[in-house]
Amino acid sequence: MAKFENPVIKELLERYRRIWSLEHAMSLMGWDEETYMPSQGVVERATAMAELRTLYQELITSDQFVSLVERASKQEGLNEYERGVVRVLTREITILKKIPPSLNYELTKTSQEAFIAWREAKAKSDFQMFRPYLEKIVELNRQMAEKLGYEENPYDALLDLHEEGLRTRDVRGVFSVLEPAMKRVLDRVTSEGYFSSPSPLEETKYEEAAMRRVNEAVLSLLGYPTDRARLDVSPHPFTINMGVNDVRITTRYEGFDFKRSLFSVVHEFGHATYELQIDPELDMTPIGTGASLGVHEGQSRFWENVVGRTLSFVKVIRPILDRELGFTRAYSD
Amino acid sequence: MAKFENPVIKELLERYRRIWSLEHAMSLMGWDEETYMPSQGVVERATAMAELRTLYQELITSDQFVSLVERASKQEGLNEYERGVVRVLTREITILKKIPPSLNYELTKTSQEAFIAWREAKAKSDFQMFRPYLEKIVELNRQMAEKLGYEENPYDALLDLHEEGLRTRDVRGVFSVLEPAMKRVLDRVTSEGYFSSPSPLEETKYEEAAMRRVNEAVLSLLGYPTDRARLDVSPHPFTINMGVNDVRITTRYEGFDFKRSLFSVVHEFGHATYELQIDPELDMTPIGTGASLGVHEGQSRFWENVVGRTLSFVKVIRPILDRELGFTRAYSD
Repeated sequence: MAKFENPVIKELLERYRRIWSLEHAMSLMGWDEETYMPSQGVVERATAMAELRTLYQELITSDQFVSLVERASKQEGLNEYERGVVRVLTREITILKKIPPSLNYELTKTSQEAFIAWREAKAKSDFQMFRPYLEKIVELNRQMAEKLGYEENPYDALLDLHEEGLRTRDVRGVFSVLEPAMKRVLDRVTSEGYFSSPSPLEETKYEEAAMRRVNEAVLSLLGYPTDRARLDVSPHPFTINMGVNDVRITTRYEGFDFKRSLFSVVHEFGHATYELQIDPELDMTPIGTGASLGVHEGQSRFWENVVGRTLSFVKVIRPILDRELGFTRAYSD
Repeated sequence: MAKFENPVIKELLERYRRIWSLEHAMSLMGWDEETYMPSQGVVERATAMAELRTLYQELITSDQFVSLVERASKQEGLNEYERGVVRVLTREITILKKIPPSLNYELTKTSQEAFIAWREAKAKSDFQMFRPYLEKIVELNRQMAEKLGYEENPYDALLDLHEEGLRTRDVRGVFSVLEPAMKRVLDRVTSEGYFSSPSPLEETKYEEAAMRRVNEAVLSLLGYPTDRARLDVSPHPFTINMGVNDVRITTRYEGFDFKRSLFSVVHEFGHATYELQIDPELDMTPIGTGASLGVHEGQSRFWENVVGRTLSFVKVIRPILDRELGFTRAYSD
């Protein structure tokens, strides 16, 4: 049975395609800024991103679109996918109606410009270069929180953007259990002097081309579909999706400690797999992407830690490491 | 003196920035489709491109924007840059008002999908794979010509899109002189049996990585600014500009006859240089890009043929070829 059958929902999805297309373009622009864009292109990119972000806001909060969403919400007998479409769009509209377009514009533009400054500051290990951008971003986010509104803590408004309904209080609740427990473990480790010794592998240098072949071979082993997905390089690894059939991950090559590059690939593979396994019928709809940052991170860490950091996994990828890097041959599993 | 001083023109450029941003995004989407996009992403990309192309059309032909352009056109004492802005926008609006959005949508979507089909057909040397796409594109362009209107020949309407005012009749006029003259040369060459013999270099194989270093070194020698420009790989070389500070060229690596890769780089360098030398003050305005396809091709062929295919140029790049390819050392200049 088709997921979308209600005629009003179908009309809504048809109209939404234009809004989705802006999202698609902005995802690509974000990916490109972190991977291939020439550095001097930053003002053009930041301007275009801010313009399209506010255009997106204008289209999705337009009277015409909002009334169509309202009409859809009043339909009888919607299935769970159709209700999902209405729910996600209603939430997005509610959020974007609270944010002044000028603030949206400024925060978008500043964030884009900040990335290039951050990259340079990172390369030079010079926090002062990045500081003014960070201060401005924090200030703009404070304004954002006030506009969005909150009950207890300004950060609740921002947290909700990434993890619907999560509050600072909830996060504190989690950490209030974790922190003392971890401290007990740490105390015992310290008092008993029980540390794992660093492996010489953490200092062993590798050739970038060889390491890239390792990453590609591991992804191939994991079933990463190269006709729907890519692996590129960026200063900080990330995953981004342009749609169900175009998902891209990145890693970095520091030239030593190969597991840092490898595990970031396995981590991002987890994010990517989540997006790649979304039902193609949901592609280009408001419910055609991951549910939240938390669910996403659950996927990525599952692959990185539960699968990746095991002896079984090492045994499987061992032949790749030995073949491409060579120096691993001197070590037992 | 600033190029834009009239307040109505300034307001117009401010409003135009959103339209420019869509153009920026579509340029990047086009570049990405030909260079890095995973092949299965084609339907998403084609859909997004068609949506944004029609959104662009809607914004630039909106009553609000059109009346602002009209108001600008009636201003007294505009300088030549300001008049240029009005002229270019008026032309764009006139063209886009004639095209039905549905035709614009279909032609854009078909062209995007056709690219992926063409790439596969090219790789397999199988014209039949591409034929239905080409037929549809021709048919849609015929419709486009009828909508745009023409006096003598349907192709005049399409020619005008690339070279303002040029007619089929003019092109025939050029060829009616060139053709018999070239035929005379050809006849003499044939009757006297005077052919240049093929060089064994045309069959000599090269390593892609070495050839890439050649291309990069030659671009560096020519002053190609890597903080504002890129070189990538695509099945057919092209140049595209996202703005004055982000211009990208491509080449291809067939693995033999190194001059094919090299001269396409020099050719595209000509296109790129034209865009890179545009006054930064014109960036993100309607007059911030090349004037026409003809002027563009004049730039690229100047670099490829007048500069590139000379003994002087070969002497300058010779050390690069000898160092990276090696096999050129066996030849005299």
